[in-house]
Parts: sequence; structure tokens; C-alpha cells
Amino acid sequence: MAQKFNGQTLTFQNPPHIISHGSVVGPEEKKGPLGKNFDLTYEDAKCGEKTWEKGEKKMVSDSVNLALQKANLTTSDIDIILGGDLLNQLITANFVARDYDVPYLGLYGACSTMVQALGLGAALIDGSYADCVLGYCSSHYQTAERQYRNPLEYGVQYPPYKQWTVTGAGSYILGRVGGSTWITHATFGKVMDLGQKDANDMGGAMAPAAADTLIQHFKDLNRGPQDYDLILTGDLGRTGRKILDSLLVEKNINLGEKLQDCGAMLLTDEKKYGSGGSGCAASAVVVGSVIIPKIINADINRIIIIGTGALLSSLTVKQGESIPSVAHAVVIEKIPGGENNNG
Amino acid sequence: MAQKFNGQTLTFQNPPHIISHGSVVGPEEKKGPLGKNFDLTYEDAKCGEKTWEKGEKKMVSDSVNLALQKANLTTSDIDIILGGDLLNQLITANFVARDYDVPYLGLYGACSTMVQALGLGAALIDGSYADCVLGYCSSHYQTAERQYRNPLEYGVQYPPYKQWTVTGAGSYILGRVGGSTWITHATFGKVMDLGQKDANDMGGAMAPAAADTLIQHFKDLNRGPQDYDLILTGDLGRTGRKILDSLLVEKNINLGEKLQDCGAMLLTDEKKYGSGGSGCAASAVVVGSVIIPKIINADINRIIIIGTGALLSSLTVKQGESIPSVAHAVVIEKIPGGENNNG
Repeated sequence: MAQKFNGQTLTFQNPPHIISHGSVVGPEEKKGPLGKNFDLTYEDAKCGEKTWEKGEKKMVSDSVNLALQKANLTTSDIDIILGGDLLNQLITANFVARDYDVPYLGLYGACSTMVQALGLGAALIDGSYADCVLGYCSSHYQTAERQYRNPLEYGVQYPPYKQWTVTGAGSYILGRVGGSTWITHATFGKVMDLGQKDANDMGGAMAPAAADTLIQHFKDLNRGPQDYDLILTGDLGRTGRKILDSLLVEKNINLGEKLQDCGAMLLTDEKKYGSGGSGCAASAVVVGSVIIPKIINADINRIIIIGTGALLSSLTVKQGESIPSVAHAVVIEKIPGGENNNG
Repeated sequence: MAQKFNGQTLTFQNPPHIISHGSVVGPEEKKGPLGKNFDLTYEDAKCGEKTWEKGEKKMVSDSVNLALQKANLTTSDIDIILGGDLLNQLITANFVARDYDVPYLGLYGACSTMVQALGLGAALIDGSYADCVLGYCSSHYQTAERQYRNPLEYGVQYPPYKQWTVTGAGSYILGRVGGSTWITHATFGKVMDLGQKDANDMGGAMAPAAADTLIQHFKDLNRGPQDYDLILTGDLGRTGRKILDSLLVEKNINLGEKLQDCGAMLLTDEKKYGSGGSGCAASAVVVGSVIIPKIINADINRIIIIGTGALLSSLTVKQGESIPSVAHAVVIEKIPGGENNNG
């Protein structure tokens, strides 16, 4: 059998299709410039549940149901679920999986988890270990603040470069037929740490990992910026995006406006949201509900999404550690010749 | 391409070899009946580091170095690392990966994580997405007690069926040549929850997941207990093992002494350790350092290891949730005809 990887990049022989996607966001994301793109929005971050954590779980369940409905599938069609979130022990992803009679693998790549799930899910399908994979991911402002920083009631003031965790959930169904886009490659990244210790500046901590993965991806496939219509990062925010741009310019890679960030696109009010959105949900909802429709409408053809994750915990911050980061990427493009679109 | 799965079970066409293994344990495990089997033991749970968390990280790094040395490999031979642990945001696995210039994917299946890594790693190699995979996992009594229950200084008394988190780390190198055993199948499990809410009885919470995965495995491959020399669970402990045995007897599956539990084997003093050991490290160190040598010495030929994970967090316990659990399994057997043994 031919080797299907080079360097850090997997090349799928029969690229798995993105059959459908479901997105759910909270009140802040609804108010933002992309608010109308999402399938379902909640005014209440608890989504009518008793706790924020149960609200986050409800968002994931809703996004799964939306993705299944759009694809005209049920959970019995799913061979394996890949899920993750930011909460300790992945309680959102685990408790959602409890409701389904489907094998489940928990993944943790912090805010890169959605891209990690898409890459691994594509490998499982292309490798013939599954016909249909469900991947989901979530983040939530209130649950993340309480866990990583301070309870909101403290009213702590943050520096302007801090990001705002996106409240939302995204689900993707990957399979062999259906949809209009497919995943052709995945590049899994190394853990990078340049010694940055400021937990309010995760964009700065993650930018070097994003640069490393993108440069490696270009090298592995002998490609460059000209081969992509859009180079998208998950949640570097405006600050991290600028740093990534500078790091790439140093290597003579000039992306200009081709470089966009899901978190920055989602939450634009700098006074309220600082550097922009962060969290697994940023890429999970923007790629499926904003970018894939652009590919389907032929505005763009081939993109790379680089999910970025800051691998810290509140304990490592207290113990004075710097912030290791990782970035995973997948390439999504329009299926040549086209397929029926139910995504 | 032929479908390589049936039901929940993956069948590897070219079963990946377990090339080598490294194990490190702490003081309690060293005193136990298996103490002499492990590669490296520490009398001090901090391993000479400033904190327990840094001690846990040291154990993982040591186990990686041991596995690499035994295989006569360096990290530059590794295509991808799969790692996980029990600490919030997988800080042990993440911070260990920071030291290596190798792509890294974080996994979370609670105490089933080592088996999840072996199954996914085998799929990546069999599917030609990697030639060589490093998987590692750890748990640590002091870091886990502080995070999941109470600081040790409180001196809280626990019921006799409670388990004792194993302090240790195990690393496995999977590849295409070398070693004397290989991984022929993986069965990924569903999340089960029968409503058990007692966080001191994780064996009871996890036993139904182990039963479900084993029964499904037998069904998918049309096999039964007679096809295995040993049916091993990760960390059900003595209490959970009894419950699993009863659940299987109800289904007319009688395992008798073929059913063994890594955690129960590791820590046998019931007065001190209650129901036995728990934690990712239980299966990570016992399979590689106790069971695989038995396969190599031809005492046994084919085993199934069922890693069991309780997917709770301290927050879900406080919010009154029951404990969802998952169990993943891999089949390990002697390579027919034999290979050179450097494991």
C-alpha cells in the first residue's frame, strides 16, 4: 500500500466528504457580523437549562441534530463519534455522547480540537475504518471563564489583547457521498512553546504553532499561498493574527488579506471582546456556516483551516509554566464535478 | 478497498507491531506483587521535582526514553505521538510532547486512554498514515486525589470499595517491524451510564461499559472466551471485576479466572488500597511489563485488553450527575513465526 503521508501531512486517497454541518451560537455571537449565518442562536447562554455547563451540552446536542437532519441521517448511520471541548475531562463531549448508541473517542487539542477531529475522522474514513464519522466541538464563555480564569461575578478587568471565549457548538458529518466539499489533506502539528507566560495573550502563545504547521504543510505538499484562496486560523484573534503574519513575513511568506481568523471574524467589537473570539467553537461554527457556503457558492475553491490550541491549565499558570501550543490543519475544497449539496 | 471494520471492531490488515515499551511506577506500585516487573521505580512520588505534577511528567518522559532505548530509536523516527492523562487539559501529556519535535494528538478517554491510543495508533499505521507511532499515558495518586477528590492533607476516610490511583507511566512504540507481539483488532466503545452516582465506586460505574464492549467484540468477530488466553480489564478493581463477571454470566459468558484486572493485580493490599489500583497507568504499565512478556515467553498467546474510563469530573459530581463510562479494547497476540524481540 502506498504511504499516505509526507512529513507531517496526510494525503487522503479518497477524500472524505463533508456531508453536512450544524451550528449553534450564543447571544454575543448572534449580535456579531456573522450572526445570521448560524443555524440556531440562543439569547440565553444557559439555553433554558439549570447551569451553563448543561447549556453548553444542549448546544452540542442541537448542533448534532441539525447536522443529522440536513444529511437526512440518524445516529444509527454514524460509525464513530469524535468529540471534545475545553471543560475539565471533556464533560460536554462525554455527556453528549452518552445519549447516542455509537462508539465515541474523546479528543483534546484545546481550541484546535475541531480540526483535530476533522483530520482524524477523515483518516478513519479514507483508511476504511469507518463509513460515516460525526465530529463535534464546543466552547462557552461562562463555563470557560469560571474554569480558566475567575467567576464572572468578580468583575475582573482584562487587558485589551485578551480574547473572549465563543459560546457555541459545531457538528460535522463526514462520509463517502453527499455534500459539496471534501477534506483532501490533514497536517498535524507539533507542540511549540516560546516561553510566553501571559494567559491573557493566548493568540501570542499560539501564533508560532500556527506558523510552524503552515510552513510544514507548504513544504510537505510543495505548495504555497498561491494554492489557497483563504488561509484561516481558528482563534488567534486580532493580536495573534498580526503576530502570525509577522512570523510568516520573516520567512518571506506574504499572506496579506488571505489570512483570516475565525475568532476575529466572529466578535468584532474591540471594546467589548478585546482581540476577538477564542475557543473550539470559533472554527467549529465559522468553517461550516460561513466558509463552506462560500466554497459551495464558488466564491472560493480551496482553503486551509489551521486550528490553534493553547495547552495550558489554570494549574500550570499557577505553577509558573509558560504556555505550550499546538496547531492542526485540514484542507477543504470543492468536490470537482460537484456532488449533490445537502450540507 | 475492503472495509476494515465490522460493527464497532476494526481489523488490521497488516497488524502493527508493538516494537517496545517503557514503564515507570511510584513507591506503592513498587511494593506490590508486580514491583519487579517495571523498568524504573521511584521511591519519591515527586521524582525529585518540585511538584507532583512535574513528577508525573518526569515519569512519562522516562518511560518514553526507555521505550526508545529498547527499540534503538530516537524521536526523529516517530511520525506521530498520541498521549493523554487524567489531569485537567491533559497537562502531563501536553508538556511532555513540548520536548519533542514530533506531531502530537491529545486523547482523553479517562483511564481507557492508553487503549484508545493503541487502537488509534494501530489504525494510523495499518492505514499507511504513519510508520511509527509513540503512545503514552500516565496517572498519579497525589495529583489525581487533589484534582478529583480532596487534598491528601484533609485525611478524608473512604469506603473499602474505593480504588487507589496508580502512580506511573507507560509508553509504547508501534511500527511495522520489530517486537514479538502485534495488535490485530481494536473495538471502540460507546458511552454507557446506568445512573451510578458514587464517585468512590468507579469500578461499578465502568463495569457495564466493559461488558458492552466485550460482548460487541465477540459478536463483531464471531469469537468467544475460548479464543482468548486472558481477558484483561484496565482498572475495574476487585469490586468492578466482580460486577463485570456477574453481568457477563447473565449473558451466559463465563470467564472465570480468564478475567483479570490490571489495577487489582497491581495493588493487592485491601486494607490500604481498597478495591485496587485505578488510573490510566494501570493498564499502561501492566500490559507492557507483565502481560506482553508472558506472551513473548509463550505462557499465553492472544489477549484482549479492555481499557475502562469513568468520564466524570469533580464539577459533574457536584452538579449531581451520574457517571458516564466508556471501554475500548485491543487484541494483542504473538506474531506468528516470531520477530526479533527488542521489546
